[in-house]
Amino acid sequence: MNAEIIAVGTELLLGDILNTDAQFLSRELAALGINVLRQHVVGDNHARLKELVLDAKNRCDLLVFSGGLGPTADDLTKETVAACFGDELRFDPEEWEKITGFFSGMGRPTPENNRKQAMVPVRGRKLPNANGTAPGAWFQDGDKIAILLPGPPKELEPLWTAEVRPLLAARQNGVLRSLVLRVAGVGESDAEARVGHLFRNANPTAAIYAKLGEVIIRITARAQDEQTADAMCRAYAEKFYDLLGDAIYAEGEEGVEYTVVHLLQQKGQTVAAAESLTGGMVAQRITDVPGASQVLGCSFVTYSNQAKQRLVGVDPAVLETYDAVSSQTAAQMAFGARDAAQADLGLATTGLAGPGGGTPERPVGLVYIAAAYGDTVTVKKLMIPARSRDTVRRRTVQNVLELARRVMLGLDVPGAKTFPRGVLASLE
Amino acid sequence: MNAEIIAVGTELLLGDILNTDAQFLSRELAALGINVLRQHVVGDNHARLKELVLDAKNRCDLLVFSGGLGPTADDLTKETVAACFGDELRFDPEEWEKITGFFSGMGRPTPENNRKQAMVPVRGRKLPNANGTAPGAWFQDGDKIAILLPGPPKELEPLWTAEVRPLLAARQNGVLRSLVLRVAGVGESDAEARVGHLFRNANPTAAIYAKLGEVIIRITARAQDEQTADAMCRAYAEKFYDLLGDAIYAEGEEGVEYTVVHLLQQKGQTVAAAESLTGGMVAQRITDVPGASQVLGCSFVTYSNQAKQRLVGVDPAVLETYDAVSSQTAAQMAFGARDAAQADLGLATTGLAGPGGGTPERPVGLVYIAAAYGDTVTVKKLMIPARSRDTVRRRTVQNVLELARRVMLGLDVPGAKTFPRGVLASLE
Repeated sequence: MNAEIIAVGTELLLGDILNTDAQFLSRELAALGINVLRQHVVGDNHARLKELVLDAKNRCDLLVFSGGLGPTADDLTKETVAACFGDELRFDPEEWEKITGFFSGMGRPTPENNRKQAMVPVRGRKLPNANGTAPGAWFQDGDKIAILLPGPPKELEPLWTAEVRPLLAARQNGVLRSLVLRVAGVGESDAEARVGHLFRNANPTAAIYAKLGEVIIRITARAQDEQTADAMCRAYAEKFYDLLGDAIYAEGEEGVEYTVVHLLQQKGQTVAAAESLTGGMVAQRITDVPGASQVLGCSFVTYSNQAKQRLVGVDPAVLETYDAVSSQTAAQMAFGARDAAQADLGLATTGLAGPGGGTPERPVGLVYIAAAYGDTVTVKKLMIPARSRDTVRRRTVQNVLELARRVMLGLDVPGAKTFPRGVLASLE
Repeated sequence: MNAEIIAVGTELLLGDILNTDAQFLSRELAALGINVLRQHVVGDNHARLKELVLDAKNRCDLLVFSGGLGPTADDLTKETVAACFGDELRFDPEEWEKITGFFSGMGRPTPENNRKQAMVPVRGRKLPNANGTAPGAWFQDGDKIAILLPGPPKELEPLWTAEVRPLLAARQNGVLRSLVLRVAGVGESDAEARVGHLFRNANPTAAIYAKLGEVIIRITARAQDEQTADAMCRAYAEKFYDLLGDAIYAEGEEGVEYTVVHLLQQKGQTVAAAESLTGGMVAQRITDVPGASQVLGCSFVTYSNQAKQRLVGVDPAVLETYDAVSSQTAAQMAFGARDAAQADLGLATTGLAGPGGGTPERPVGLVYIAAAYGDTVTVKKLMIPARSRDTVRRRTVQNVLELARRVMLGLDVPGAKTFPRGVLASLE
């Protein structure tokens, strides 16, 4: 099966947004064994869109669209594709109810132009969107298929996974199963050097993706049935475990914050943080996990020196002698957060997020992180190559969560040092 | 002038890499007043590439290519485009010297297949690449132009800026300028209903984009000089101000957290938050702004009832009588955060983020936000349609920041109520 991907949106042609949908869909189609011939971006223009759709329909079997399903007059993808696929649209009361429910939930009347979004294919099928008001659509004309998806990735990706992937997989011969390994503390090129040979395999395939501060390995096997495909993935995963060991922190779609929360839940323990440069992001990541209230009662943003003293009891002399950005301060913040919250695990971050405030000796990207657990605190110095403020902050959060995982599991933490309580935590 | 952008590379069709070149080139072309009709991605396949090039050459005046200039046999963009533009390639000794110099600098012999990269247009021109071995190329056939650029952004972007932009700017008559308006508290379809007629205009043009909890309007004018284009944007913006009024909270690329931080800086004031369901996200958004340390010393994540009492002094009787998710609790949290931090503005969030914990009477998405400022607290109830936990949390943050802006500016807050200190904040 051959496919083309068509993104619709003037904002893409103006360069206002990055076309991440095309990458997501390309990966997904490749994993289904569907050959992507071309990707396109076109504007919200009926004539140009029609020309492209008819050309692409001649070239291939499957067209996957993203975007152009909004309520405004210039959102016309659904109408255009319906016409090219010999279908029509009808008003769907069920979708309309969802849309009006959405607006009344916000205490607002539903604008009349949102009726457009409740129009669904007459001969094709609608694809329910659990995360937005625009349903997707599936049109079919003989052997040719068009799939229309909403543009925002937070709507497109779950809709694809829940509604579209199973339908396409059923059309492909055999089934496809994937297993995701999540790797922390190992860079992409480092991982490539250690397990690179495993990425050159026909079935299962394995692919590597770098994410901020972690690496994702996706193993995909094709077989006649799910059980066989799963077993093939599992056997291939073992090869990665042999080479990467405890750097693989989890399997699946959930980040290291889930691992940390689950470890705490298993132990019946709680966590609190004292955050300086990350300004609440550590607590945010932890509370992203449903049920986090079991393991986090409170947490502190201690941005100023005064807050570090007053809220989490950092010694003014330590701030004076070693600076707020120091291993000594990070260690005291971690113990202080733990004590103030009466928690079992105390986390701390302090550093220079930039853009200002760096010097040649202490550049932007200099960060100390700490985890107080039991009678000791483990402290690590990071030097995050100064890109954006946002990058420095996100990488810090990723690192402190990985530190928490290793400390709770009693694993060695590369590059870190552990100190008993009451000892100044000096890394020099 | 109309253009299409063509990226060449199988790795893009497999989703292995993200097509950031297309975004860069789209922005650059838009800024030059060149209309981008389409973007494409095709594989390294001579026949498919030729078909696309000939089609695109018929549709528009300028084709900009990225990628496909490598040394391997499947890199054939230059040969294909040369043929489509009636040009040929010749061996260029100067480029060959650069390539061999590059390899000898790495202590390696130059592979013979790199000779391909030293081939340059006979009638067109080469575009020197300061950051790689593959020069770009400029082909011309009558009024039609093709520009070939290397794929890696670190090569493409500087080459574009140094060699291509000046040549294209010289061909364009006039300049293009944009102005961005940011709108809070008004949905996309609501905005469309009020100002939709303004989006159908030739020059300036105006376009609308929805973001979580806000709407972005981009006005773009074309004129003979920057001053005239800017004045046209400004005059057109006034039409939006007339209809949307103080819902327009800023101009430019910065979100409402910047407006809040700048207002606090202007007033020499500080802020602290007590966050329940948002778990640190309010503090995170505020500390996203460089220089936030002037306005935020500390902030609190008060997830548990105990934390709400102990850290920000919520009355246990209020929690008992009205529940943690109530206007009364939100108001006390806002005053409590302010007092505990000795700040001027206290913000609070409490609600049900889900996925669990909702009931028919109190569903997931029920949220109370509050802002304590001066002697009063302003409290608002939100009913966020339950999508994901993440959406509920993000919309809450957006709403409490917009609440903070309106309270600080003394603006009316639709749907909110204001109470003096010491009065139970009942919205019923």
